[in-house]
Parts: sequence; C-alpha cells; structure tokens
Amino acid sequence: MNKLYVVGIGPGEYEQMTLKAAKVLESCDVIAGYGVYVDLVKEHFPGKEFLTTPMRQEEKRCRMALEEAAKGKNVAMICSGDAGVYGMTGLIYELSGSYPGVDIEPVCGVSAVISGAAILGAPLIHDFAVISLSDLLTPWEKIEKRLLAASEADMVICLYNPSSMKRKDYLEKACRIMRTYKSPETICGITRNIGREGQSSCILSLEELEKNQVDMFSTVFIGNSQTMAIDGKMVTPRGYRYE
Amino acid sequence: MNKLYVVGIGPGEYEQMTLKAAKVLESCDVIAGYGVYVDLVKEHFPGKEFLTTPMRQEEKRCRMALEEAAKGKNVAMICSGDAGVYGMTGLIYELSGSYPGVDIEPVCGVSAVISGAAILGAPLIHDFAVISLSDLLTPWEKIEKRLLAASEADMVICLYNPSSMKRKDYLEKACRIMRTYKSPETICGITRNIGREGQSSCILSLEELEKNQVDMFSTVFIGNSQTMAIDGKMVTPRGYRYE
Repeated sequence: MNKLYVVGIGPGEYEQMTLKAAKVLESCDVIAGYGVYVDLVKEHFPGKEFLTTPMRQEEKRCRMALEEAAKGKNVAMICSGDAGVYGMTGLIYELSGSYPGVDIEPVCGVSAVISGAAILGAPLIHDFAVISLSDLLTPWEKIEKRLLAASEADMVICLYNPSSMKRKDYLEKACRIMRTYKSPETICGITRNIGREGQSSCILSLEELEKNQVDMFSTVFIGNSQTMAIDGKMVTPRGYRYE
Repeated sequence: MNKLYVVGIGPGEYEQMTLKAAKVLESCDVIAGYGVYVDLVKEHFPGKEFLTTPMRQEEKRCRMALEEAAKGKNVAMICSGDAGVYGMTGLIYELSGSYPGVDIEPVCGVSAVISGAAILGAPLIHDFAVISLSDLLTPWEKIEKRLLAASEADMVICLYNPSSMKRKDYLEKACRIMRTYKSPETICGITRNIGREGQSSCILSLEELEKNQVDMFSTVFIGNSQTMAIDGKMVTPRGYRYE
C-alpha cells in the first residue's frame, strides 16, 4: 500500500525531532510541506525530492502529497510541532476519500504547547486548555467563549497564533476577556522562536501581558490561580504536599 | 554546574523519544524514575546507574534525583510522555531551592495527548482541553467544573487518568457531566497502552463511552460538535473549505 506519513518535526532544531520522525524522513522519497519547514530539515536529508507550497495553500499542499503517494512514491508531509495539533493531519484525512489506496500514518512531534512549556519551566503540571487566537477559520465569538470558559474554570491556558500583522490587538483583547475571571497578578509566560535562532522567553503578570506586543512566532501561556514564579521559571503545582 | 535533566521519554517505544532525549540519556551517569519507565529504557542505555522509587513516592523520587545531581553526577530523571504535562518537572522546580547549584533542564517528550491523538486520527485539529480525572490531588468539584466549562465552550477534551481501581465509575460520571452540553452522538476515542505491547484504540459515541470500562492505561478523547468519524478515524476539522 502506498504510504503518506504526516510528520511533526517538533519546534525546529533537528534534535527535537523523534527518532521515528528522523527515520521516516530518511526512508521516504518525497518530503512535502510549507517552504519554511522544509528549509528547516533539508540539510539533514539530502537527495530527497522536496515539494513546497506557500502559506494559506493548505488544500493544495495536502492534495499534492496525497497525489504523490497515490503515484506509488513514499511521501512524508511535514508540519512544525505536531501535525495533529492545528496541523495538516485533519485536512489530509478529510481529503483522503479521493485517493483510495493511500495509507495515512501520523508520526508524532513535540508541539509548541510542550516545547514552550519546557522553556518556561513547568506551567502544564495541571489541567490546561489550548486555544488559537486566529479567527481566519473560526468566528471570534467562539474563541471568546472558550477563553471565558477556560478562565472561569481556572485552567492554565496556552495561546497559539496570539498575533499577526492583521490582528495586532488580539492578545490584548484576549487578556481583557481572561481577566473577567483571572487575577491581574496571574503568572504568564511568552516564548518566541522556540528551538530556532533567536529563541527567547519571559515571565510576566497577566496585567503586563495585556500591554505586551507579541508576534506570530510567539506562543503564550497564562497560569492558573496556583501558578508561581520560582527563580525565573513558571511553575504550576500538581498539589503534592512536601516538607 | 551540576545538571539535572528532566526527560520525557514519550509513550514507550524507544523510537518515539526525541533525538535529544536519547542523546541526554546516553550522556548522563544516572537515570532516575518510576520503576516501570526505567524498565522501558534500560536495555537501550546499558552501563548507567538506575535509581527507582515505587508509585506515589514522587517527592522521594525528585529529592533522590536532585541529591545525586548535587553530588556532581549528571542525572536524568525520566517520565513517560512529557515531564511537563502532569509530570515531575513541577515538583523538581518546587523542591530545587534546597539544592542550590543544580541546573534543571527539561527535555521534551511526546505526551499521551499527542501520541493518543495520532493513533485515533486527528482529533486535536481545533482548540482542546486536557483534564485529569484523578482526584488524588485535586478536589472532584474542580474537575467537574472544568469538564462542564470545556463542554459548554465546545472544546475537544482529552482525559488523563480516566480510571483506576478505586475510581471505576469516574469516566461514567465525567461523561454524564459532559453530556450537559455535548450531544450523545459526539465522536469519541479510547487509546490504550500507547506505544507499548497491546496497543489498542477504538472510536465510539459519547453515549457508548459512558457505558465503557476503561483502565488506568487508557487516554480518552471527546470530540467537539464538528468532530467526524472518517473511515474509522476521529477527525476534527480546522474549518478549511475545499472542493
């Protein structure tokens, strides 16, 4: 059966890929994906056929990968982070009905919610919600409802796509919504360019986060009511009692 | 500076570890952790010093790792999945004040929310909440509130610790709570023994999930109102419009 692997390459550095992802990329004929991500892996897999499409051409990118696999090639479609977290795996399954005989296999990667948390310390030691602020494909009312619900239930929140050129004030809007239930002193964290050149991070309060400008390469974390700053790290306790 | 790496080894199979995790475990003197996880990696890292503690001795386990690092050894404390998702990274930071001179570095792994999703298909292509049903360290009222909030906001929900010997009816209780807002036809998925011997999964409705018995080695996914079953896979659409 023809194989289409949908591979999460992790945050960016080669070493943050799983052994299985590296092995699959090594074994396949074609590596397809968004140009920026293909560029991240290219040097490690010489001699492969690389297929790319620009941003916002997700359907085209998925069909291209499915077609190559249908032709009998071993294809890996790559995504940054994990392909199953806001990634291409979903659309590939949705389109797969038109490409019978292609066997789809997701290969896991470390998504930004996990790699960002590791840089900040340990924000995800208790229940959390992952919410994208992009309203390109989701009505803003739905995003707002989710921000409110997660805040009211005192969950840690991780924000994907917190900003873009056209949505410069979205993080500020989101912070105002979360402050309905979360204290302005809530410990928050920003990570930027995780696992890539220029990686940076900072810990700040929700009140400070509201005034902060972040870009589209950032992932943002908002703590729960128990989250602490310990020696510059963002730490959510699990609830262990210790001496 | 003395190093304590807190390493997520992924779901279980060696290949699902990141290249960095494998490199760190290769380079360290001591591998510490819960016995079951140490057994999973032992054969791949011969010649290391292995330190284990039984379940529920989390404080002891963390102090043991911190003490070994304080002595000047290179130590890796391992967790299954990712050490930052309900893992030991938090407690290690909380206890670290008593061990000055130990530099803590989290090394990411693929958590069950990601590895389970990949087995089921693509349930996490839109906003999701991760909630543990264990009330060992969390009051049940808080868990209930989070289940209600995430359901009302139509988020995909991933449940960790859905059951145990003493909590056989917790998943049933959780399903009843989620049904306040989620339709009984909501597409759900169960994964068991991810990346280990006897791995299994199934797709079913929320109504069927409520009647299902799962064990402590299971991770459970509840879809949002858009989640579909496509050819035996659980797929949440992102919202792309395609021909």
